[in-house]
Amino acid sequence: MSLANSVLEGDRLALSRLLTQIENDTDIGRQALNELFPHTGKAHLIGVTGAPGTGKSSLVNQLALYYRQASAGGTPPRVAIVAVDPSSPFTGGAVLGDRIRMADLLSDPGVFIRSMASRGSLGGLAAATASMVQTLDAAGYATIMIETVGAGQAEVEIAKLAHTTLVVEAPGLGDDVQAIKAGILEIADILVLNKADRPGIEAAERALHGMLKLGHPVRRTFRHHGQAVEAPDTDIEIAGAGEWIPPILRTVASAGQGILELAAAIGEHKAFLQAGGEWQRRERARLESELELLLKSSMIDRWREATPPDRYEQTVEKLLARQLSPRQAVAALLNGVMPK
Amino acid sequence: MSLANSVLEGDRLALSRLLTQIENDTDIGRQALNELFPHTGKAHLIGVTGAPGTGKSSLVNQLALYYRQASAGGTPPRVAIVAVDPSSPFTGGAVLGDRIRMADLLSDPGVFIRSMASRGSLGGLAAATASMVQTLDAAGYATIMIETVGAGQAEVEIAKLAHTTLVVEAPGLGDDVQAIKAGILEIADILVLNKADRPGIEAAERALHGMLKLGHPVRRTFRHHGQAVEAPDTDIEIAGAGEWIPPILRTVASAGQGILELAAAIGEHKAFLQAGGEWQRRERARLESELELLLKSSMIDRWREATPPDRYEQTVEKLLARQLSPRQAVAALLNGVMPK
Repeated sequence: MSLANSVLEGDRLALSRLLTQIENDTDIGRQALNELFPHTGKAHLIGVTGAPGTGKSSLVNQLALYYRQASAGGTPPRVAIVAVDPSSPFTGGAVLGDRIRMADLLSDPGVFIRSMASRGSLGGLAAATASMVQTLDAAGYATIMIETVGAGQAEVEIAKLAHTTLVVEAPGLGDDVQAIKAGILEIADILVLNKADRPGIEAAERALHGMLKLGHPVRRTFRHHGQAVEAPDTDIEIAGAGEWIPPILRTVASAGQGILELAAAIGEHKAFLQAGGEWQRRERARLESELELLLKSSMIDRWREATPPDRYEQTVEKLLARQLSPRQAVAALLNGVMPK
Repeated sequence: MSLANSVLEGDRLALSRLLTQIENDTDIGRQALNELFPHTGKAHLIGVTGAPGTGKSSLVNQLALYYRQASAGGTPPRVAIVAVDPSSPFTGGAVLGDRIRMADLLSDPGVFIRSMASRGSLGGLAAATASMVQTLDAAGYATIMIETVGAGQAEVEIAKLAHTTLVVEAPGLGDDVQAIKAGILEIADILVLNKADRPGIEAAERALHGMLKLGHPVRRTFRHHGQAVEAPDTDIEIAGAGEWIPPILRTVASAGQGILELAAAIGEHKAFLQAGGEWQRRERARLESELELLLKSSMIDRWREATPPDRYEQTVEKLLARQLSPRQAVAALLNGVMPK
């Protein structure tokens, strides 16, 4: 039986093996992805991002536990967690996070956890994450949480892979000016103020409200057909009637506080996307974003194949001698390989 | 007179204008870069990175002040600061940093400060930063500090543009596991523990030593011909004889403490690179890294030119209908444009 078929039949070991093939971008992995792709599109993809120290991992753990325990009577939905660490390009830094995963999750056969550290380029990382998420989707995981450690451009790239994006903040993380990023807030569908039992929570919440009130356009705005979620501020300028207003929710993940309300807000957002036909629009944006990532890496691969190493070396020598500028060197390397 | 010539003659206004052209990637900017490139290669490029809240901006300000005041008698070297904020892709978050620049620097005609926020892709940001640094190099700025806000993959990309990379840490920034990143440490030529008057400094320094002792290979190792810099730990495994050992230095940038020692370590590193012929090797790595960034963005541009929009749309529709996998869609879009 092919690896893809074993994965479709629920074989966890085959799933682990395939994810390794995909992470290493092997031919076996690529072939299996082509086979699995028609089976994707069922999972709810939840991105969870925020600065270091906000307690994202605990929050993700608690949400996973909640999803596994909350289904009254019936079979609980299967949950996958993909933890991505873009700031550890050289060593498997994400592995550290595994050690603090709760035993309850690790022993649950309905939960699948996978960490990956960045290998090579950022674009490569986001593309590999997209492929891993597709595999988990095809394997029948109904809820897939994509947790990114950090708060930079990498997280924005990865957030584009999700239907619902949670941005996690916490009080007392260094300078207010730097810790709370307008750019990151703009990708949020739900804002989580974790460690809400700590001093400074009121100031942090005021700061978040302040950032939202600056009136940055929300990345995606949606017609609102579902039940209203609690608005962060009733006079907020960007919140016209019928738009999704990112709620601000307080949690203490370490004590399991606020998880029920957070899960409710996530469900609310999913219903909202589906009711307004925005689920499809976001699917398109997600897949186009992935297509773009793959296009870039494929172009590099094809260019490498088409360019003799000595031609590359000679061009670099001319660059070092300042006989060619970088842009002139690029023209020299691409002409004949791609149309101008 | 061309913009490039005005810049070479020291016209600050022309420099500002050209940097804007470069940031917007205009034809005027590209042409000027080609003209200026033969005049580059003189500046010492210093990358400064680290997590939010570590006080990087204050440190950079203090170093700039030091360089401007330290030259006994003669003309002090001109200093440029490029502050890059990769985590603000949507709004000009980096502008916030400008407000806290010291008046002493802003009024000094020998200091040039430029902020840039991310626009579009990460690769585009790093490429634009490289071009701006080249322009400042050609314009005669002897020391160029490239300050990045954040601690992710973006910083690693940008660090590749520098000769000497400072990684800044500070005590008490959230969870130890997350705040101190092995991946970031590995790009450090010099480790700075700023805010050294705060509680937790001993623990932070021990943690740094611990990370270094894990024996991660240092990204670049160098024959050691210069005077030894203070070693962080004498029994450190990676520190064979004749290699550069990243020193750990304590500073309190807000009070100007430790700046003299830091500037000395930076000078030491520069001398070390030059004495061992490693300056040239790093120049090559820097320029190859920039060439790669430009290659990627040029390939995208050429592909866009060569691909009719409706062909792209049709492929996306097939992707959405799950008739093509992402990789099959890429093959459909690239075949005929690039050799396979």
